[in-house]
Formats: sequence, structure tokens, C-alpha cells
Amino acid sequence: MSPTPARVTAVDTYDIRFPTSRELDGSDAMNPDPDYSAAYVVLRTDAADGHTGHGFTFTIGRGNEVQVAAIDALRGHVVGRSVDELCANPGTLNRDLIGDSQLRWLGPEKGVMHMAIGAVVNAVWDLAAKRAGQPLWRLLAEAEPEWLVQQIDFRYLTDALTPAEALDLLRRGREGAAERTADLLAKGFPAYTTSAGWLGYDDEKLTRLAAEAVADGFKQIKLKVGSDLEDDIRRCRVARSVVGPDIRMAIDANQRWDVEEAIRWTKALAEFDPYWIEEPTSPDDILGHAAIRRAVAPVKVATGEHVQNRIVFKQLLQADAVDIVQIDAARVGGVNENLAILLLAAKFGVPVCPHAGGVGLCELVQHLSMFDYVALAGTTENRVIEYVDHLHGHFLDPVVIRQGHYLAPTAPGFSATMRPESIAEFTYPGGSFWAADLAREKGQAA
Amino acid sequence: MSPTPARVTAVDTYDIRFPTSRELDGSDAMNPDPDYSAAYVVLRTDAADGHTGHGFTFTIGRGNEVQVAAIDALRGHVVGRSVDELCANPGTLNRDLIGDSQLRWLGPEKGVMHMAIGAVVNAVWDLAAKRAGQPLWRLLAEAEPEWLVQQIDFRYLTDALTPAEALDLLRRGREGAAERTADLLAKGFPAYTTSAGWLGYDDEKLTRLAAEAVADGFKQIKLKVGSDLEDDIRRCRVARSVVGPDIRMAIDANQRWDVEEAIRWTKALAEFDPYWIEEPTSPDDILGHAAIRRAVAPVKVATGEHVQNRIVFKQLLQADAVDIVQIDAARVGGVNENLAILLLAAKFGVPVCPHAGGVGLCELVQHLSMFDYVALAGTTENRVIEYVDHLHGHFLDPVVIRQGHYLAPTAPGFSATMRPESIAEFTYPGGSFWAADLAREKGQAA
Repeated sequence: MSPTPARVTAVDTYDIRFPTSRELDGSDAMNPDPDYSAAYVVLRTDAADGHTGHGFTFTIGRGNEVQVAAIDALRGHVVGRSVDELCANPGTLNRDLIGDSQLRWLGPEKGVMHMAIGAVVNAVWDLAAKRAGQPLWRLLAEAEPEWLVQQIDFRYLTDALTPAEALDLLRRGREGAAERTADLLAKGFPAYTTSAGWLGYDDEKLTRLAAEAVADGFKQIKLKVGSDLEDDIRRCRVARSVVGPDIRMAIDANQRWDVEEAIRWTKALAEFDPYWIEEPTSPDDILGHAAIRRAVAPVKVATGEHVQNRIVFKQLLQADAVDIVQIDAARVGGVNENLAILLLAAKFGVPVCPHAGGVGLCELVQHLSMFDYVALAGTTENRVIEYVDHLHGHFLDPVVIRQGHYLAPTAPGFSATMRPESIAEFTYPGGSFWAADLAREKGQAA
Repeated sequence: MSPTPARVTAVDTYDIRFPTSRELDGSDAMNPDPDYSAAYVVLRTDAADGHTGHGFTFTIGRGNEVQVAAIDALRGHVVGRSVDELCANPGTLNRDLIGDSQLRWLGPEKGVMHMAIGAVVNAVWDLAAKRAGQPLWRLLAEAEPEWLVQQIDFRYLTDALTPAEALDLLRRGREGAAERTADLLAKGFPAYTTSAGWLGYDDEKLTRLAAEAVADGFKQIKLKVGSDLEDDIRRCRVARSVVGPDIRMAIDANQRWDVEEAIRWTKALAEFDPYWIEEPTSPDDILGHAAIRRAVAPVKVATGEHVQNRIVFKQLLQADAVDIVQIDAARVGGVNENLAILLLAAKFGVPVCPHAGGVGLCELVQHLSMFDYVALAGTTENRVIEYVDHLHGHFLDPVVIRQGHYLAPTAPGFSATMRPESIAEFTYPGGSFWAADLAREKGQAA
């Protein structure tokens, strides 16, 4: 008699919030006071190996509880499933979650509900990689192209990318993959840093951090802009004078502008040779990005961290609206949807430079870029992963940066596992940090 | 001494679900078993007039609790506000809610969080109209154009519509408004019916309901399509033979197709002279709709019930992607955002034919079309409001249909107030209907 197959026994959720707003870390023109947070999910099973699957949606504070409620709404689709079947084809779960016709009404495939699906599906990918004993990037890079294509939902994509075209791209990507894996393990993947350029920092701090970035080996930095043009001109001048002409300097408006304002403002900063203008306007405005791109060249246009799904990325590429695709590991419907977006970018010949930062986004997205390098794009030229030096210590397998590069993770999984003591401290509102903080507030009010 | 100004004292939320899936009402190619539901909100104040403001998000069942959690997350922005100030400028609240930088991360302006904002903002419009003693359509139609423009958030719209252009459209719309108001009060606004065409109905029921629709004075019906082409051909043939050549027959695929499939399928149904094809593909796919429209003319392309916000509507118009704009009263950020969409449609010369049905959507959206007729578009030609004969009895001021027309509401407010006994019966899971139902299920399982 064969043993009972292992099942998912629990989908545990946690509302975890870090009080980052108190330091002005992460401040920009649209997000003055973020408290970096995670709607965190742990899949537990009754398998003998004891592995758990971890995933999360990143938020910036208020509303994290709504995101947790959305993950809770998916529980019934996951508990009781066969662990072997789930991990053999994580794409199956993705399609079942997106296909829940009642939940679909809350999107479809966008916002709170879609991010919740991404968190759960990413937890399955984490579990699958742990069970395979591989870091996720390597599991993906060494997977059969046919299997990868089966994980992807091509619905609404086929006018731009068919499964056959995807298969062809993945097969060609395999050529030379072993050499690139060796290169990646030796050197890592290029990073750029945003740590210097938050809007809330004064010129002295900007100067010091920009100089440190260059000394640390980064070849690109990024500055937040869009609040006040005179300030932006001064800050860009300061930063450019610190880093010199050879370091790339990106600027990021965090959706602050309308189309014409984006064009005017970007042109006013062109003398400082910005490499790209990021999120010049609404992430929903495909045609707006196309108009901005035509007007501000040779400054490149980048967006993606708030792009809701593969359908909008498809159109950004079809409309020649972006020079840089900025995937985010925790906004779309999980690894499978990001595979679709990487394939779209490869087909259109546009480099992918992921959004990261927040809490845990660096840990996740490095895997996707490393897969892209080894088994799809085949190069790191003009490709960089965002890096922000925040909150990595809360993860069991934090990113490691050396000489401006992400070192390739070697531990099995998706690097998503948060330290239990961090969860205990920063769960909101009952964790030890918040309980003490709220008690203090109450005491002051009394 | 002046009396203390009235304040909002509570934002009460209710998870209300109707068991519609048991009758196959509302079944279509994407939504086989909806339980029409409302995440319902009531604003209470300490004003002497005793008025309450009512609003809701429509959902189709599971996940309604997520939508309630999202409305709950907005409570802190509303409780304690001056009722006079809120009702004098409902647009102010809309901007404050959208501008909450932490909550904005969960969208921005899309999905669960944006629909929650719409529910709360619509409750303020309901309260404002009740306090003014006017049905909302009339309050809007008689408002000063300058004031209407102040209620609208033009962010991300100004490349297509500036406040000055909007003001001009509204000023021109005033000409002849009094005559149109009289006409509207006499005749009502044209409706079309979807009640005959649900996928779950057999041919006999389709035949009977289509004949009834014509007898009832409707000049347009709608059929759900997209599940099986041979079935669709048969059902379209049946319906066309029943209604004859002069009744318009729209078809609705509820996002079922990719671009090329939409073109092929629509062409295969062209012999039955469909007036429009609705939601042929993803509501996010602006360029896809444009490609479909070019290919299937003279069949018109319609979409909007799942279009997330004004920015996507703007692009659908900029890209010549739609012949018909289908606003929904409860998906975008409230009346103010729908005013922006009506103005965009007016500028681009595209008729607005709202989505309705579900629960309460007919009650709300009639006000927006009636405003459009009286004070903006100036005509009802080629304009119809969807009508579905479901669940109207749960509202205190239900829609009234005569000879295929919505009669103009005369009671003050936005027609959003649900009967207290309906709320008590259908609140999930504790209301009397669900408590009994769940107890029965439990009994059967035991």
C-alpha cells in the first residue's frame, strides 16, 4: 500500500509592518511616509520533508490588512491539494485562482486580488524549489522549455506572443546556458542603488551616499524627482557632480505627472544626462508613455513596478512605449506571469531591469533576472536590478551585494522566508514592537 | 453661539449576498454561477435631518468580504468630517481617498481598493442629493458647470481633456436643458434588456423572453455568447427570428476571447446583424479592442463594465478602440470619476450606454445617463441603459420601467438605499436567509 500523498494542511497569513516612515527611508514624490509591509503567507504541508512555502505581497502600510483578507479568500483553493501535484505544475494553481469566476470580478487580474494570487502562487514556487533542492533561478534556468511554457497562461497574449514563439525563445536561450551559470556564480548580476536618492534626504546625505555608491562599485544610481523642479535641478546637479559622467543616473517620478508635464520636466533635467525617466505618469497610461518616450528621447522611458499584469506589459511593448521593462516580483500573479512578461520583453528586444526595494522584493526578483540572463536574454548588458539597503536582515537568505552585483543565491527556494523572530516582532498590531508602540501612544494620549 | 456643525458619526459596512446562482440568472461565458452581492456602506451623521448616505460595490459572491475590508480601511478618512463640507464638495473626499499614499499602493485606482473608494464616495453623493431634496440626476443637471468641474480629478487626463474643455462642454450642454428635463420626466430614458439572453437559459426560455421583451417595448436585446460557437449561432438565429430585423440585438462575450478569436467569432455571428460586440477581450487590452474594432466593423465594439478607471477609458477613446462607452456606476471612484468619463466620451463623440444589472446597478446608473442626456450629450439617440429584471425589490426607490424606458426617479438621492429587511435577511453569513441555509447544509452533511 502506498503512503497517503502529502497535502497542503494550512495557508497561514500574517500582517507584518515595519515602521520605516520614521526614518524617511523610501520617501518619494508620491509616497512621503511608507511603512514597508508584507501580507505574508506560509503554506504548510504534512510532507515528511517539513518544507514550508513562503510568499507575500509588499505594501507600504495601511491596507495591509485588506491584502491579508484577500489572501485568506484564496485559502479554500489551496488547502487539501496534493503537494506533489502543486509543485509539479505551479502554473495550474495560478490558473485555478485567476479562474475563480466570483473572485475574478474583484479584478480581473489587477490590484488587491491579483497581488494576493501572486503571493500564494509564489509560495508554491518557493516550496517547489525547496523540494527540488535548488534556488529558484536555477530550477527555472534548468527546466525544460516545454515545461516552462506549460506553466504560463497565454490568455490575452496570443496576438503578441504564442506558446510556439515562447518555446522557440526558450530553446534558443538554452544555448550557452551552462557558461552563463558559471559566470553568474562567479560574478553575480549587476545592481543599481536607489539608497542615495530618496526625496526626504538633504544634499549632504545625498552627496555622501552617492559617493559611497560609486565607491561600492555601483555603475548606476537613481534619484527620486517630481516634487519641485528647482529642487530636482539642484539635486541632479549635486548627484551628477559627485558621481561624474560615467556613472548612469536614473530619475524616478513615481507617477507624479500628466503627459505634458512629464515631457516638460524631463527635458528640464536632460542636461544632467539621466539614463532613464521612471514612472513618468500613471502606470495605466500606455499611450501616455508612448507619447512621453517619443518626446524625451534619448532619455529612456522605464515603468513596471505598478503595472498590474502581463496584458498591460504587452501593450507597452506593442506601442513602443518603454525602453526598459521593470518587472516586480510581487505585484503580478506570481512567477508564471513574470515568465510571460520576460518572454514578451525578449520577443520585443527590450531589456528587463526589475523594480526592487521595499521589504523582500530584492530577495525575490533577483531569481527572475538571473533566470532571464542564463536562459532567455543571454546577456546582462544594459540590465540591472534595483537595490535598496533596507530590511534584508529579516530574511533567512538575504541578498548579498558585492562590488555592485547581486551574488547568485545558492540556498534552495525563492529567498522569501522571513525570520520567525521578525514575524513575531513586527506582526501588526499584536507583535512585540507594535504592541509596545501602541501602548506608548495610548499612554501619551492619556 | 452657532450650533456644533454636523459630523459623520459612523461608516457602517454590510456583506450582503443574494443566492442568485441557484436560478442561473446572470450566467455567462465567464461567470457561470454568480451570487449577486453588495459590499454595502451607510454613512451616518448627527445632523438633525436624519439623512443617511448609502453606497456599495457590486460583486458576484466570494470576495465580498475583501471588498468590505477595503471599505473599512477608508473609515478613518470619513468619520468626523463636517457633513456640510463633504456634501458641498464630494470631489474633495474622492481626492483625499485616492491620495492616501499608503492605500494607493494597493491600486493605484483599480480593483478592490478603487471600488471601495467608489462605494464611499457614492454614499456621499447620495447624502448630498438627499439633503438637497433632489434625485441625483437632477442635482447634477442643474449644478453650475464650474462646480461640476471642481468635483472632477483631471489627473492623467489633461492630454485628452482639460478642465477648460470640460467647462466648455458643460456650458454648451446647458442649452435646452429645461426642455430635455421635461421630455425625460414625460418619457424616461431608453433601456435595453439582457434578461432574455443568459447562457444558462434553453431555447424555449430564450424564445419566450425575447418575445416578451419586444412586447414590453424594448428596441434592443442582448445575448451572452462566447462559450460554444455552434450554440451561439443557434441562439442568435433563434433570437433574431423572434425579434425580427428592426430590433437591435447586441452580443456580449464577457472577455472570453483573445484578439484573433474575437475577430473570428464575431465575424461568424455577423449574419445575424449584431449591433455591438461587448467585452470581446480583456478590459485592459486597449490596443486589442482597437484591432478588433478595425476588423469587425460594421459591428460596433463596446466595453466598460470592467474598465478600472478614467485613464483606461481615455485611451480606449484616444485609440479609436470603442464605438460605445459602457460606464458602470460602482466600479470606478464614484460619481465624480464617471463625470470625467462622460465628459471624455462627449469630447470624442462616442455614445455612453451604461452597464447595469447585478444588484442596484440599474438604480444607480440611470442617474448618470439622465444627467448625460439633459446636460451634456443632449440626446438619447443611440443611447440605451442596460436593464435586467433582478432584485429591484430590495431597494426603497427601485427603478421603474415603462415601454422599454427607465422612468426618471423623483425621490431625493441616488436610489441606493436598500430595504432594512433585505439587509437583515441577506447579510452573510449571519442574516436570516444565510443562517438558515448554512444550518441546513450542516444538517445534510451530518
